Order: sequence, then structure tokens, then C-alpha cells
Amino acid sequence: MKRIAVDMDEVLADYSGELMKRVNEKYDLTLTKKDLEGTHIQKMFPEVADDLFDIVNTDSFFRSLPVIKDSQEVLEELSEHYEIVIATAAMLSPNSFVAKYDWLQEHFPFLNPNLFVFCGDKSTVKADYLVDDHIYQLNTFQDRGIMFTAAHNVDEPYDLRMNNWQELRTYFLEKANVKV
Amino acid sequence: MKRIAVDMDEVLADYSGELMKRVNEKYDLTLTKKDLEGTHIQKMFPEVADDLFDIVNTDSFFRSLPVIKDSQEVLEELSEHYEIVIATAAMLSPNSFVAKYDWLQEHFPFLNPNLFVFCGDKSTVKADYLVDDHIYQLNTFQDRGIMFTAAHNVDEPYDLRMNNWQELRTYFLEKANVKV
Repeated sequence: MKRIAVDMDEVLADYSGELMKRVNEKYDLTLTKKDLEGTHIQKMFPEVADDLFDIVNTDSFFRSLPVIKDSQEVLEELSEHYEIVIATAAMLSPNSFVAKYDWLQEHFPFLNPNLFVFCGDKSTVKADYLVDDHIYQLNTFQDRGIMFTAAHNVDEPYDLRMNNWQELRTYFLEKANVKV
Repeated sequence: MKRIAVDMDEVLADYSGELMKRVNEKYDLTLTKKDLEGTHIQKMFPEVADDLFDIVNTDSFFRSLPVIKDSQEVLEELSEHYEIVIATAAMLSPNSFVAKYDWLQEHFPFLNPNLFVFCGDKSTVKADYLVDDHIYQLNTFQDRGIMFTAAHNVDEPYDLRMNNWQELRTYFLEKANVKV
């Protein structure tokens, strides 16, 4: 069985959407995802970098992240044809470890926690595919990378891009010779 | 640069030694490492399995683990010739995540946290070598496994075994064509 490694933030969990919501509330703004295209909130508001770090570096932030559309259903279907590894860069925010683990157990109860990988650099992850929103992770990974579209990466060139979980579904089921 | 993945418990951290010490204190026993050969404390005292789980499944247990002899000096020397990945099975005790991270930062400050991997099954780890005390992890890993001797594995057959960090030093420096 081939193995797909799937990133969490921006692929399964709407990290930037939740951060945007909290920033809008705190600073009385009306940012939308459109405003985040090609950038990060952290880059847009460098003067409140410490504030933003305090927001995201909490247990409650990671626990509250909304699930990205269709990811649950599609991942459950794909798990019949592939081994699913969850590969998340967690080493920059150790406070997120338990929250990320609990979030996965809550929203993706069909996944095998033995295949959760909390890492830094994804060159350490062994899988046939990596679905990720970060070009630097895709570039360091040694097998087939797939860029998952997020606001911040819309202008990044990459040779294989998927815009949503329905596209991932079609791609992977076709690879597995399953009728889509 | 070739990459060595190194397990934590029983390879860098004296997990069974600390557990034995606590069990000796709590139950007024005089167990030694010799008594643990070919077994685990958990197997020796199944009637107090819950008690033992309560001891190890704490933040303070993992923080207090003694460092395995020579591991610091040798790993620092090897890190000049290899990329060092720390690959620890943490998914069975999520409470250990932060303690393990802090322990590594305290005792192995020269390591790159971007190459820490908290996983379950080590088939998910990409490296050229894996140093581990568990036969099931060595068997699931796809590149060169090296069994690191611990009391519980002394009777396990495996084709490449190292008994201490000085043996690992010689093995890896010779592989890297460094004069030992």
C-alpha cells in the first residue's frame, strides 16, 4: 500500500482562517482570505508579532481550528487505498503538541495515531507522497510532493498543485485505479 | 551527509533505570538491571500495571530521566559527520511530548530541533540508519537498523547490535572514514 503524508495546518486545519478571525475581533478589522493572498497575517502586521505569537502559541488555539472542507470524508475514503501519515511541523510550538494530537483524534478518529509524525523538517518523513502548503517542505521532501493551495501560496510556482480535497480525491483514486 | 535516526528511551534516556528506581522506592524492592534482562518491569508486575502507567505517564517522569552513558559526547562528535535525527515513539503517551522536547533541549543542546521526530511506528522515519532498542521498530524501519542493547532485548537476535555508545562511535566514524 502506498503511503500519503498529509500536513495539518492549512491542509486539514484552517489555521490562517482562525487566526484571521481572532485578529479581526481583537483589532476590529474586516480581513478576508482574499487579503491574505500571497502573504501571512504575521507578515502583514509585524508591529504586533508578539501579540500574534501569543495567540497561536496556546493549547486553545490549536484545539479550536476549523476542519478544512471535505478533508474528513475524502481522507477516510483514501484510507481504504493508502496508508495515511499525518506529518505536522510542531517543533516550533511545543505547546501545540497535545492540542494537535487531541484535535486529530477528535476530527479524524479513523486515523492510526501510530502514523502521526510531529516533526520539524519534512525531509525526515518517509512516504510516497506529501500534501503540504509550504514550498520549503515540499522541496525538502524526497518523494512526490503535492502543493495544497492556501492563501499564502497562490503565487508560488510548483509542478503539482491541488486546490481542494475533491481534486486530491480524484488524483489519488485514479492513481489507485479506483473508479472515481 | 548520511542521516542517523536515534531513539530516545533506552538509547539516550535511561527509562527502565528510572522506572526501576521508582518501583524499588515505592514497593521497597531491590531490583537491579540484571533482574530486567529479557523482560520489562511492566511484565514483571502486571498486578500493578495501572500504578506503573501512572508513574511513567507524567511530565515529571520524562524530565527526570538520566542520560545514557557517553551518549552526549559521542552524539556531538557524530553530528560533525552525520545529520542526527531524534526519532521517539511518543504517540502512546501524549503527556510526554513537551517533557521529551525539553529534556532533549537540556541534555543535547547541540541538536537541531527541526530534526526531532515524535512518532509512533518508525517506518515513518526517513534516515539511513536507525539506532533503537526495539526489535519491532528495527523491523519496520526500511534502511539499516542497529539494535542498541537494553536489558529487555539481551536475548533478541538481530544482525547488528551495539552494546554502548563507544561501539556506536567506532562504527559510525569508520563508516565516515574518520580515524577513530
